[in-house]
Amino acid sequence: MEVLNLGMVGGGTVGSGVFHALQQNGALLAARIGIRIHVRKVAVKSVEEPRPYPIPRRFLTTNWREVVEDPQVQLVTELVGGTTVAREVVETALRLGKPVITANKALLSAHGPALFAEAERHGTNLYFEASVCGGIPILKALREGFVGNRVTALYGIVNGTCNYILTRMTQERADFQTVLREAQQEGYAETPPDLDIDGHDAQHKTGILASLAHGHWIPADYIAVEGIRAITPLDLQFAAQLGYTIKLLGIVKQLKERARHQGEVPLQVSVYPALVPSDHVLARVQGVYNAVFVRGDVVGDTLFYGRGAGKDATASAVLSDLADAALDVRLGTRRRRPAFVKGPDAVRVVPLDDVVSRSFVRLSVIDQPGVLARIAAVFGRARIGIASVIQPEGHTGEVVPLILMLHEAPDGAVRKALDRIARLPVVKAPPVRFRVESLT
Amino acid sequence: MEVLNLGMVGGGTVGSGVFHALQQNGALLAARIGIRIHVRKVAVKSVEEPRPYPIPRRFLTTNWREVVEDPQVQLVTELVGGTTVAREVVETALRLGKPVITANKALLSAHGPALFAEAERHGTNLYFEASVCGGIPILKALREGFVGNRVTALYGIVNGTCNYILTRMTQERADFQTVLREAQQEGYAETPPDLDIDGHDAQHKTGILASLAHGHWIPADYIAVEGIRAITPLDLQFAAQLGYTIKLLGIVKQLKERARHQGEVPLQVSVYPALVPSDHVLARVQGVYNAVFVRGDVVGDTLFYGRGAGKDATASAVLSDLADAALDVRLGTRRRRPAFVKGPDAVRVVPLDDVVSRSFVRLSVIDQPGVLARIAAVFGRARIGIASVIQPEGHTGEVVPLILMLHEAPDGAVRKALDRIARLPVVKAPPVRFRVESLT
Repeated sequence: MEVLNLGMVGGGTVGSGVFHALQQNGALLAARIGIRIHVRKVAVKSVEEPRPYPIPRRFLTTNWREVVEDPQVQLVTELVGGTTVAREVVETALRLGKPVITANKALLSAHGPALFAEAERHGTNLYFEASVCGGIPILKALREGFVGNRVTALYGIVNGTCNYILTRMTQERADFQTVLREAQQEGYAETPPDLDIDGHDAQHKTGILASLAHGHWIPADYIAVEGIRAITPLDLQFAAQLGYTIKLLGIVKQLKERARHQGEVPLQVSVYPALVPSDHVLARVQGVYNAVFVRGDVVGDTLFYGRGAGKDATASAVLSDLADAALDVRLGTRRRRPAFVKGPDAVRVVPLDDVVSRSFVRLSVIDQPGVLARIAAVFGRARIGIASVIQPEGHTGEVVPLILMLHEAPDGAVRKALDRIARLPVVKAPPVRFRVESLT
Repeated sequence: MEVLNLGMVGGGTVGSGVFHALQQNGALLAARIGIRIHVRKVAVKSVEEPRPYPIPRRFLTTNWREVVEDPQVQLVTELVGGTTVAREVVETALRLGKPVITANKALLSAHGPALFAEAERHGTNLYFEASVCGGIPILKALREGFVGNRVTALYGIVNGTCNYILTRMTQERADFQTVLREAQQEGYAETPPDLDIDGHDAQHKTGILASLAHGHWIPADYIAVEGIRAITPLDLQFAAQLGYTIKLLGIVKQLKERARHQGEVPLQVSVYPALVPSDHVLARVQGVYNAVFVRGDVVGDTLFYGRGAGKDATASAVLSDLADAALDVRLGTRRRRPAFVKGPDAVRVVPLDDVVSRSFVRLSVIDQPGVLARIAAVFGRARIGIASVIQPEGHTGEVVPLILMLHEAPDGAVRKALDRIARLPVVKAPPVRFRVESLT
């Protein structure tokens, strides 16, 4: 059986997970693809650092160039993370014509197009299934499974930390800070947690999904992003009462069917917490799990669900890419499915202010007659319709929550109306607002 | 751009769906894979037959050999269904070295290994993503996405007709015959419905999934099958009360982790209606939708959801295979991922009688003192534990339902105990029994 030599850069959580999975299932993989993948060397930051799975000392080096530049090494994994050394590793390998497998969404988000161009120049390829939603083969599904589809809508729960926190807040009626602290202690959230909690990790992944789905690279700064810090148990409770669950969603949505034929696809690409109907499959995605709901113009509605992170789930995706890369190397088809293929349709990312959606609004108001009328007047002047109101009973003069469901309106108009409402004397805290995604 | 000529055999529901999808998205597909797929000819049973999407007269012929044997035709789709003409079509194309794309699960179930061998002999390949779960790219996920995983458990809702009927029975508390009749009128069930309702369609698909997951062809007659005819609204209602939903499942489960290392994987492969926890994602799969829950030893738990049938969803899968086949033809890598690859581990399908599971049992008994004791005695002698009992209040002498949840026990033992219970004078109808799958 043919053997291909793998050089690994990064032997931490994901790296050691890949090493372990290759030990455990390497023979199975070999039987399936007809190629044995042999780990030749693993570059690590420090030989002594603790890792979830052990890697024997003889494989280790602290010099990544020794791995990447080894003439015997035919495939390279970049599993160090970050955008500095990782970038150098990937570029060096690609310049040597070696296929690179990476799990690094931050690197792709920052330098994707440059790296894809580098791969093309040197007749090789970059594989990145593991960069989005860990074990869920979502990039393969988009690229290959739905190769005959236009993706008209995609909604992803792509950050396990946020989904874990929201699930626990919902189940335990606990507040954000308490659950975050516990999640950090349990290892479900990083310290500092900002990259996850503020939606930036989801933004990277949503950008990659949007780019693959539409064949145009969408830079992160085109993607409006809101995190989950503002969500309170009260919001989850009122949302539930109205038949909804709050999820942090990465959204890639074609806004008008028509415009496509005028040469340009208007796209919404954003990340924010949204209300989704509680009986929808997406709403049932709990804990650290990820899921991506994809609507194709031929296939209809689909959903892909699984673990989005962790050493093993991510290793599963790296092994899938390794198998593709190994077949491509052996068969001499390194550019069979290039890392990125430009699509035929032009796209335009529509500013979030122009995106139309329904809204859930929670205000903290003084409980006194006429409050609702004053608030309704602001929405009325902005031509924003109110669909329903929940006004829990309180005592006169107390600060109480007031929940409003708004009809469809442009995002900017809702934002401006809420700015005005925030300045009303009867409103005692900044308005909280989440968009409603009906997913139909 | 390179052009490949496609010869289509079958221009009915799926065939015309593929023709239409190629018209609609052919340019998109070409941009993505760098190859334009040109439909040269479509063989149909009758030129005049109605089809959901029109195919211009100039493409049509009633002679399939004219399509398959045309030297200009480089790829062939077989979308006629059945196992007679379809088999001839596939064999003829493969013998000419032409890759074949099929959606025909019945053909694969009956003649899979012979067709795979034929493809191998002639250095070509057979593609069949569309044969299982229509638009869900589940075969690609198993074969490529999870190439580095052993599949330890797989549970599939793989028959949309049954899932539609069970969903409506649950929502409307309507009986099986009524819902079936309406489903037939609406086009969600065939006339006669037996292939779906009695589980044989699910059996074909489950066999294909099991074979791909474990690398050994599992013939249909190894797969125990029960359909959904016995389910009543009462069962759905009591199941709900206990926290469960009833779904027709295709099950492929590795029974003991240990035995693998003794050279043989003991496998359960069966199709039957089962109780699944109502809060599990699988339980939320409603209507005509399909879903496959896959547990991999590296990736953990995953789920794939979408439309399992219909002209468009199936066309999406055919286009995915067409893209793979076109790339394989153009790059000269026709056996890149052979249709079927034998796995390294030996497998043994365990007879259902030896499979251990929990059970839900509904008896129709005379409401009189001592009935439960007599029934419990039978289970006691068979060493089957009773976990819980629901005994709705009735009037003495009336026939009332008695619901029992049984602890884990071998299937054969439960069957024999129920045979004995059926003969008790107080039991007035054949016992109804469904297995419980906790999915943990």
